[in-house]
Amino acid sequence: MTNPITPEWIALDWGTSNLRGWAMQGGAVLDSARSGDGMGNLEKTGFESALTALLAGWNVSPKTPIIACGMVGSRQGWVEAPYRSVPCKPLSESVVRPTSDAFDVRVLPGLRQTTPSDVMRGEETQIAGFLSLNPNWDGVICLPGTHTKWAQVSAGEVVSFETYMTGEMFSLLSTQSVLRHSVGGEDWDAVAFDNSIEEALSKPEKLAARLFSIRADDLLKGTSPEVSRARLSGLLIGAELSAARPYWLGMNIAIIGDTSLATFYARALGNQGVPATIADAARMTLAGLTAAYRHTKDAR
Amino acid sequence: MTNPITPEWIALDWGTSNLRGWAMQGGAVLDSARSGDGMGNLEKTGFESALTALLAGWNVSPKTPIIACGMVGSRQGWVEAPYRSVPCKPLSESVVRPTSDAFDVRVLPGLRQTTPSDVMRGEETQIAGFLSLNPNWDGVICLPGTHTKWAQVSAGEVVSFETYMTGEMFSLLSTQSVLRHSVGGEDWDAVAFDNSIEEALSKPEKLAARLFSIRADDLLKGTSPEVSRARLSGLLIGAELSAARPYWLGMNIAIIGDTSLATFYARALGNQGVPATIADAARMTLAGLTAAYRHTKDAR
Repeated sequence: MTNPITPEWIALDWGTSNLRGWAMQGGAVLDSARSGDGMGNLEKTGFESALTALLAGWNVSPKTPIIACGMVGSRQGWVEAPYRSVPCKPLSESVVRPTSDAFDVRVLPGLRQTTPSDVMRGEETQIAGFLSLNPNWDGVICLPGTHTKWAQVSAGEVVSFETYMTGEMFSLLSTQSVLRHSVGGEDWDAVAFDNSIEEALSKPEKLAARLFSIRADDLLKGTSPEVSRARLSGLLIGAELSAARPYWLGMNIAIIGDTSLATFYARALGNQGVPATIADAARMTLAGLTAAYRHTKDAR
Repeated sequence: MTNPITPEWIALDWGTSNLRGWAMQGGAVLDSARSGDGMGNLEKTGFESALTALLAGWNVSPKTPIIACGMVGSRQGWVEAPYRSVPCKPLSESVVRPTSDAFDVRVLPGLRQTTPSDVMRGEETQIAGFLSLNPNWDGVICLPGTHTKWAQVSAGEVVSFETYMTGEMFSLLSTQSVLRHSVGGEDWDAVAFDNSIEEALSKPEKLAARLFSIRADDLLKGTSPEVSRARLSGLLIGAELSAARPYWLGMNIAIIGDTSLATFYARALGNQGVPATIADAARMTLAGLTAAYRHTKDAR
């Protein structure tokens, strides 16, 4: 048996559905682990044992610093890390520690906006990661996902942000609504996507009338699943772009997301003449957690 | 044991989720029955036994005429009754009979529209029922439900129609999305509903940005579930009204639906200065099936 890895510190991305950890030495990744023990799948008392299971392969002491971001810090999480109000820097020096004999866990707080009401947990760490790799960057960061965020960033602070349920709507409509019969598979037609984005942007008030036509076109014209799927995606992302127009029109845009989803957003924005940089979500999370670890170390 | 009822004919409303039957004497209801054996819950071979179970309490012979409308006539139903193309009268004299030794079932066809693509099955019978009770009526009929239909009716014909997934979206978002935590219960705030309708109608392009704010307002301001629920309902119905504006603006409107849902639509339209008549959905279905029965009798 080889000696287990002894990390200097642990980075944790603890979201609603998944738990992901990295064994770290400074800014270098020694190893990684993941499980399905997301906040949404755990009882209040289940967090410590979920973490024990995740870290079982590494040599972790009660003094090893563990930096966590995401829904683990929500009211339903392990310990509530109260939201900080924008405008503010994406990373806080104040972290919140859950009660634990086994682990030294420090949970990063999310951000809140009062008018209009909005909240984020986890994305602030990705934004911090992006800014740590791109100092002095000003512009708008789009973070597509289940709940897509658009954040205006200036002078190292998050100034304002807005959340869209586009990913969750796509998931519900494509797997549970009557449209599920028409949008199966993973294939995707680029022309239908572009046209639907354009349709949603030019006539956003008509969106509600377009969704069922995906089903009717399949029934009456035998439209292929890849066209139907791209239309649904294009209509929903187009509706988001319509509402988020003040965030992207004439702005410097970075997209932090999984490659395929980020590419869809970049394509849609590109068609509107707005170029966007893509940054990998997991890499930004890790960079943000690393920046947070350095903060807490410096603060000691 | 009393003698079982011997109906002259049977009226059937056979939808996706439910099966509903009436024992009829001319236009009079002798008795009614219902079950959960909707088309969506049955195998192709299960329709005859589902009908046997529904009619068990009545004296029904293989010669008793049974008139059925709804998804029973879809491709996944008992027998496919091909769509008829609008413009056309809502009722057809040609019905389709499934193979059955036990029953004389006649399935009414639905309607289709080519441009833009759209289909209905069942609502055409409600429209026929409304027109049989209101001869020479011209205007627009709104049929709110899982998939709300707006139909333009003139000179006894359905001229055009449009389908909205509003009911299905409300159901998915209120029970399965992150909003489920905020919109629980059955209570409903009228002022929040009115404001949300107005918001959606005046800025339809902003809708996608409004949905998550229901959750954020709850988290940050403790908005009550009845306000949150009314906002979700108002935003979705408002988005529908925005897209359906050519159907209702300055038109003579009838709403065929369940009382509570029909009342919401009537309230929203009333606030826009558009009065609407409400007609009960089950009553219109029965009137339509009765009109269809008389057609087939006359045609013999």
